[in-house]
Amino acid sequence: MSEPMAPLSACRLGLDTHQEPTIYLRHDSPVCRSEGFSALSRVMVRTERKHLIATLNMVTSNLLMPGEIGFSESAWKRMELREGNSVWLSHPKPVQSLSYLRAKVFGSELSQEQLREIIDDIVAGRYADVHLAAFITACASDKLSIREITDLTRAMVDSGSQIEWGLPQVVDKHCVGGLPGNRTTPIIVSILAAAGLTMPKTSSRAITSPAGTADTMETLTNVSLSLEQMRSVVEQEGGCLAWGGSVRLSPSDDLLIQVERALDIDSEGQLIASVLSKKIAAGATHVVIDIPVGETAKVRSQESAQALADNFKAVASTLGLTVHTLLTDGSQPIGRGIGPALEARDILSVLQNKKDMPTDLRQRAAEVAGAMLDLINDLPEGEGYKQALRILESGAAWEKFQAICKAQGGLKTPPIAPYRYELIAQKTGIVDQINNRKLAKVAKLAGAPADLAAGVDMHCKLGDKIDLNQPLLTIHAESSGELSYAVDYLEDHSDIIHIIAGREPS
Amino acid sequence: MSEPMAPLSACRLGLDTHQEPTIYLRHDSPVCRSEGFSALSRVMVRTERKHLIATLNMVTSNLLMPGEIGFSESAWKRMELREGNSVWLSHPKPVQSLSYLRAKVFGSELSQEQLREIIDDIVAGRYADVHLAAFITACASDKLSIREITDLTRAMVDSGSQIEWGLPQVVDKHCVGGLPGNRTTPIIVSILAAAGLTMPKTSSRAITSPAGTADTMETLTNVSLSLEQMRSVVEQEGGCLAWGGSVRLSPSDDLLIQVERALDIDSEGQLIASVLSKKIAAGATHVVIDIPVGETAKVRSQESAQALADNFKAVASTLGLTVHTLLTDGSQPIGRGIGPALEARDILSVLQNKKDMPTDLRQRAAEVAGAMLDLINDLPEGEGYKQALRILESGAAWEKFQAICKAQGGLKTPPIAPYRYELIAQKTGIVDQINNRKLAKVAKLAGAPADLAAGVDMHCKLGDKIDLNQPLLTIHAESSGELSYAVDYLEDHSDIIHIIAGREPS
Repeated sequence: MSEPMAPLSACRLGLDTHQEPTIYLRHDSPVCRSEGFSALSRVMVRTERKHLIATLNMVTSNLLMPGEIGFSESAWKRMELREGNSVWLSHPKPVQSLSYLRAKVFGSELSQEQLREIIDDIVAGRYADVHLAAFITACASDKLSIREITDLTRAMVDSGSQIEWGLPQVVDKHCVGGLPGNRTTPIIVSILAAAGLTMPKTSSRAITSPAGTADTMETLTNVSLSLEQMRSVVEQEGGCLAWGGSVRLSPSDDLLIQVERALDIDSEGQLIASVLSKKIAAGATHVVIDIPVGETAKVRSQESAQALADNFKAVASTLGLTVHTLLTDGSQPIGRGIGPALEARDILSVLQNKKDMPTDLRQRAAEVAGAMLDLINDLPEGEGYKQALRILESGAAWEKFQAICKAQGGLKTPPIAPYRYELIAQKTGIVDQINNRKLAKVAKLAGAPADLAAGVDMHCKLGDKIDLNQPLLTIHAESSGELSYAVDYLEDHSDIIHIIAGREPS
Repeated sequence: MSEPMAPLSACRLGLDTHQEPTIYLRHDSPVCRSEGFSALSRVMVRTERKHLIATLNMVTSNLLMPGEIGFSESAWKRMELREGNSVWLSHPKPVQSLSYLRAKVFGSELSQEQLREIIDDIVAGRYADVHLAAFITACASDKLSIREITDLTRAMVDSGSQIEWGLPQVVDKHCVGGLPGNRTTPIIVSILAAAGLTMPKTSSRAITSPAGTADTMETLTNVSLSLEQMRSVVEQEGGCLAWGGSVRLSPSDDLLIQVERALDIDSEGQLIASVLSKKIAAGATHVVIDIPVGETAKVRSQESAQALADNFKAVASTLGLTVHTLLTDGSQPIGRGIGPALEARDILSVLQNKKDMPTDLRQRAAEVAGAMLDLINDLPEGEGYKQALRILESGAAWEKFQAICKAQGGLKTPPIAPYRYELIAQKTGIVDQINNRKLAKVAKLAGAPADLAAGVDMHCKLGDKIDLNQPLLTIHAESSGELSYAVDYLEDHSDIIHIIAGREPS
C-alpha cells in the first residue's frame, strides 16, 4: 500500500541543537506530503546501518536542495553519517512508555517493567525534551514511592555500562550538594586510595550548581575517560576522578540532567536514583553520603535530611549496597572558591598543606574520608578521621592525587579569569548570615560552570568581624558581559552576606 | 563595565521551528564569547523596536557569515524583521515566575498574582517548551484547587483580547470532547442564531483528538477572523463559527495547547481554565457544557463527570458566568465521520435534512441547543428541544448556516481524500463495544486533523447486526504513508469494533 520512497541525501548543516537530534526538510519535500510530516513531527530516520527518532524542523528557504535532508550535529554524530549518505524516513511506532508517563502524571504508581521501558526509551532517544520535562516534573517532590525509586535505580543501572571489579570492597562517596565550594571529593579519593582502598570515582557535571566535581577536576586533568582507561587508572592507583558521562554509566541520567538544568528542578526520587545508579554501575559496595543541612543549602532542615538519609538507605539496602549517611553543617560555603577553577585552587592548597589553606575544606574532607575508614575497618568512631588527617599531613594524599592525575593524562594548572569585581563592606560588623543559593546564582551568572575560571572567591566566614571597606568577595568572569550580569544581580541582592552591627574594636 | 557590542545583522534562515522562537549564531561569534552563550541558552534579542527571548542554536558551518544572526520563521515574524536589520543580544533577566512554577511542582498552591505572572510570561514568550511542559504536568490531574483554576482562568482572560457585546444575554456552548465525530457546534450555532440568540462562537483546533470544531469548519469556510470581522459577522447574523486562536482570545491557551498536544496530556484544571477563559473573553453570559460519559470517552464515569460539572460551575459562578452542564451518552462516536472533512459532510446532511443523515448527530445537537433555549427562555424542560428540532426541520438552521459562512467569506466544499482502506467484518454478530480512543488514534494516524480530508468513516453503531464481509469502517488519508500507518495500527488492534456472536438471521 505504501509506495517505497526514493532515499534522501544526507547533508550536514552544522547546526548545534544540543542533545535533541533534529532533522531539516524542505517544506515542499514529497516525503512531507506523503508521510504528513510537519514542523516538530517526530520522525524515524534510517540509513542502511543506523536509525533514530528525530524532531523535524522545516526549511522554507533554499538551505537545502530538493532531495536533501539536513541534520543537526547531534543527529549527524549519532547516525554516523557521511555527506550524501542515503536516508529513509518514516513514522516512528507510537512510544508505548509515553502512556506510562501520562499515567504517572495522573498519579499512578509505575511498575518495574514500566519504569524500565521509560528508561530504555529515554536512552534510545525516543523522548523529546518536552517528554523528559514532563517525566522529571511528574516524578518531582514526593511523587515516587521507595519501590518506584528502587526500580528506577535498577532500570538506570541496567540501561548503561557496568563495571565489575572482582573485589570484596569498592568504596564511593557522594555529597547531596547545595553547598557552594564543598569540593571534598578529590581530597577524599586521594586520602582513601592512599589508605589502600579502591575508589573508582565518577562524578557528574553541575546540574543546578556553579560546579560539579567533574567540572572542577576538568581544570586539573583529563576527566573524559573510557571504561578501559578508567579501569586501568584504578588498577594502577586505587582511585580515579572521572566524568561519569563519558563512561556511560547510567546514560539516561545524563539526558535527564540536561533538562533538569533547564528547568532548575532537582527532585528527591530522581536524585536518589541518579546517585545510586551511578554508584552501583561503577561497582561500589560501600558508599558514604554527605548531606549538608542549612537554611539556604539544598536540604534545609534536620528532619528532611533524616528523611532523605532514610530513603537513601532503604533504596540502597534493597539493591545490596551499604550506605552510611553523614548530616553535616550546611550554613555557609566550604573553602573559598565557588566555581570550577577556584575550587581546584582550594583543593590543591589543602593537598599541599599550604599555610593559607581553607581549613574547613580540609576538615570536611577528612570527616567524610574518616567515616569511610570507620565503616570499612570497623574502627571506633573518630579513629578514621584522625587517620585521614595523618594521610593528608604526611603528603601521601598529595602524592596519590598527582599519581591519579598523571595516570588520567597529566596534571594541569587551573585557568585564571581575566575579569574581576570586588564587593566591599559598606559597614562595620559581624557576618551573621550567608545565602548559599544566591551566592551560587552569582557564580552561575558569572559564567560557572561552563566558563571554568568563572565564579566567586569568598573572603569572609560566618562570625567574622568585618571592617568598613573590607573585601567580602570577588567575582571572577571570563567575559565582561557575564561579569556585569553577575554584578547587577549582586547589587539587587545586598543580603547575600548579611552583616549585623558588632562590637567596635576597642 | 560591559563593553557595548557592535550589532549583528539579521538573516532570515527560513527554518520553521514552530512556536519556539529560535536564533542561530556562529560558534566563533564574539558575542557568544563575551556573553557566554551556548547551545540552548535563552537569549534576549533586541532591535530598535522589538524584543523577545529566544532559544539559541549554534552554527558550526558557514551557514552564517561572521557578524550575522539567523532567525527561525517564528522569531523573524514576532520581531517584524527585515534582512540586515541591526540586532543586539543580551542575557534575559531571570524569569521570576519560573520559581513559582517550581514551587507548584513541589506542591505549593499558587496565588492569584503568581498565576498572573506565569500567564503573562507565557504570552510574552518567556517560557521555553520544556517550561510549558513542566507547567502543564505540574497542573495536571487534581493538582490545581478551585481557587487556583479560577485565578488561572481570570489571568488567561486578562492576557488577551476581550469582546464586549453590550447585550444582556450572549450564549455559548462547549463539549468536553473525547467523543469522535461529536461535531454538534455548527448545527447548534445555526439553530440558536436562527432562534434570535447571539452566539459569537470561537472554537479551538484539536488538542489530542482527530478534529476540533475549528478544523472542521475550516473545510467549509474561512475561520481565521479578526476581532473586527468576528464582530461584524455576529452583528449581521447573530452567530459566527471562528477559530479562537486568530482573535487572540486567551492567547496563552494557544501556546499551552501546542505542548499539551505533544505530551498528549489534557488536564482538568487547564481544561476548565481553557474553556471558561475563552467564553468569558468572547463575552458570553450563558454557557451549556456537554460532557459525554463513556468507558472510552474522555470522561469515563458518571461520578467523575459530575465532579467535573461541579468544578465547572464553581469556577464559572465566581467569575459571573451562568453554566448549565449536560451529561450525555459517550459510549460510541456520534455521526459517521471522524476527521475534519468527514464531520463537515455529516453536518451538512443534518442541516439539509437529508434522508440518510446521521440522526444521532441531529438529536445530540437539538438536545444541547434545546438546553440553552430552556435556560434562556425559562421553558419547561424538553420544550427547547422540540423548538430546536422545528428550526432544523423548517430549513431555518440551514439558511442561517449558509448566511454565517457567506459572512465569513463564503461556503466551501470539504475536500475528499484520495487514499482509502475499508475494514471488513471477519465474522457475523452484534457490535457490542466501540473503542473511541483507539478509533480517534486511527483517524489521527491517517493524518487528521492536519490533513483535513483524513479520518475514519464509520459504517456501524452499537447494537448493529453485522454480516460476514460487511464494511465496518473506511479509513481516509491524503497520503499513502499515513494510510498504511493507520492500517498497521488497526490491524494490531482488532478490538476497536468488538463483535459478539449474535442471532443468525433466521
